[in-house]
Amino acid sequence: MRNLDENTITDAVLARHANATDARLKDIVTSLVRHLHAFAREVNLTEAEWEAGIRFLTEVGHMTDARRQEFILLSDTLGLSMLVTAMAHRKPEGCTEATVFGPFFVDDAPAYDNGGDVANGAQGEPCFVSGVVRGSRGEPVAGARIEVWQADAAGFYDVQYSDVENHRARGVLHSLPDGRYHFRSIVAEPYPIPHDGPVGRMLDALGRHPWRPAHLHFMITAPGYERLVTHVFREGDRYLDSDAVFGVRSSLIAPWHHHASGTAPDGTVMATPFSTLEFDFVLNRSS
Amino acid sequence: MRNLDENTITDAVLARHANATDARLKDIVTSLVRHLHAFAREVNLTEAEWEAGIRFLTEVGHMTDARRQEFILLSDTLGLSMLVTAMAHRKPEGCTEATVFGPFFVDDAPAYDNGGDVANGAQGEPCFVSGVVRGSRGEPVAGARIEVWQADAAGFYDVQYSDVENHRARGVLHSLPDGRYHFRSIVAEPYPIPHDGPVGRMLDALGRHPWRPAHLHFMITAPGYERLVTHVFREGDRYLDSDAVFGVRSSLIAPWHHHASGTAPDGTVMATPFSTLEFDFVLNRSS
Repeated sequence: MRNLDENTITDAVLARHANATDARLKDIVTSLVRHLHAFAREVNLTEAEWEAGIRFLTEVGHMTDARRQEFILLSDTLGLSMLVTAMAHRKPEGCTEATVFGPFFVDDAPAYDNGGDVANGAQGEPCFVSGVVRGSRGEPVAGARIEVWQADAAGFYDVQYSDVENHRARGVLHSLPDGRYHFRSIVAEPYPIPHDGPVGRMLDALGRHPWRPAHLHFMITAPGYERLVTHVFREGDRYLDSDAVFGVRSSLIAPWHHHASGTAPDGTVMATPFSTLEFDFVLNRSS
Repeated sequence: MRNLDENTITDAVLARHANATDARLKDIVTSLVRHLHAFAREVNLTEAEWEAGIRFLTEVGHMTDARRQEFILLSDTLGLSMLVTAMAHRKPEGCTEATVFGPFFVDDAPAYDNGGDVANGAQGEPCFVSGVVRGSRGEPVAGARIEVWQADAAGFYDVQYSDVENHRARGVLHSLPDGRYHFRSIVAEPYPIPHDGPVGRMLDALGRHPWRPAHLHFMITAPGYERLVTHVFREGDRYLDSDAVFGVRSSLIAPWHHHASGTAPDGTVMATPFSTLEFDFVLNRSS
């Protein structure tokens, strides 16, 4: 312990955890330390590079607040978030696939009845969204809690506006007795993840763009079923093959149909053009 | 790219860096992503554990400010800092070994002449420190810039006191024409690294103590020589075999000699007990 070198230090650190009582924590830290050290050895990390890493993490920490989660952006852009999501949701064929949670969820979004307009003032072309929530045996799921959130026509979520107090383009509703749901919102557009911080500078240094293909977020929970966190992606989007956070799944891509003014699916007479999206979800039974 | 799974996502992330122009950055990020993903796969990291990790890093970031560098504490306690230090300073036999920099250095410490009292009001038993700075061929190094910093009798550095404005127990001096240096300070005592934050909670959860053995920090620079960042550790300290940051080297342990009141090595007549420490440094020639 008094003469550790670059080869013996890893085991010395791990030996220090001999008294850890939480076996799972010990396993996680053991693997983390091994990989962290292996990384530093593999690239022969210099002191200047270590200092740059400390500075980068400090900037990520200082950029993070109640409205901006730069560590989640970092995890998302390094593919860690999607990896964890994929490992957590190894589902039977036919169940709706999960994708990344992202940093823009809020847990006090307003409640709406089916048919409500969750846009709540957010700018964008009106869009009528509908579908059915089913279980993996085809059974309709009534009363499923459906949380939906999305960016507006300018590519921003409500929480990214410092002058917007109310929640826009997000809401909570519940599926009807036959599993159906429907609400009004706005058309999803592609947007760059927030890139005016250290993660944006990292992407730039790596020759990467910060864009995500247009999508609508859903989180669906119902007793007896595994929670589903996913997106529906907009067919034809230019960023479907280069999502900055690696979240696209073919099964989650759906067409947004554009319509001239007229009668919307829920009977609303629209004086302006509008779009429609229909998407059904299949929940996995909880084990 | 539209159907990544837990096995294919790593290569997909790395492929996104095809256009990176900084080859070294690309190598570092490639290794980092591979190890980060391998870690997550190896422990089958759950979504709840990922969330706990995001929360932990956020807390580390929010704890960090101009006076407290929690990311360096994290790197130090995971052994990464000492690993990077060891790789950066593979020195010829006979040169003074390097150890961790730590989070308590400041770059505007006051200048002292040899013989000055760098304690500057810090509490502790007076200690007279002296020695010689030499090069690896035995030549004395004149005019070497010697920065010294240490904790006080209570185990705190000046920057840890919110009500201390001036610099205490730290200073800058230069070696004399024959390579000798000498200054007055206070006796170094063991202390816990700051453990009222997330890193302290991590150590606690891992069954680890936060203590460092007593030591005196030195950073020595001179033209033609490699910068030396090191400590001198106090012989007999109870934490020499369990330093929270893995910094101890046998060659850096030295005796602090205790004396009754009387005449100190520099001729000062002391009415109270005092200690002395003598330590010579050998700098590696820069390549």
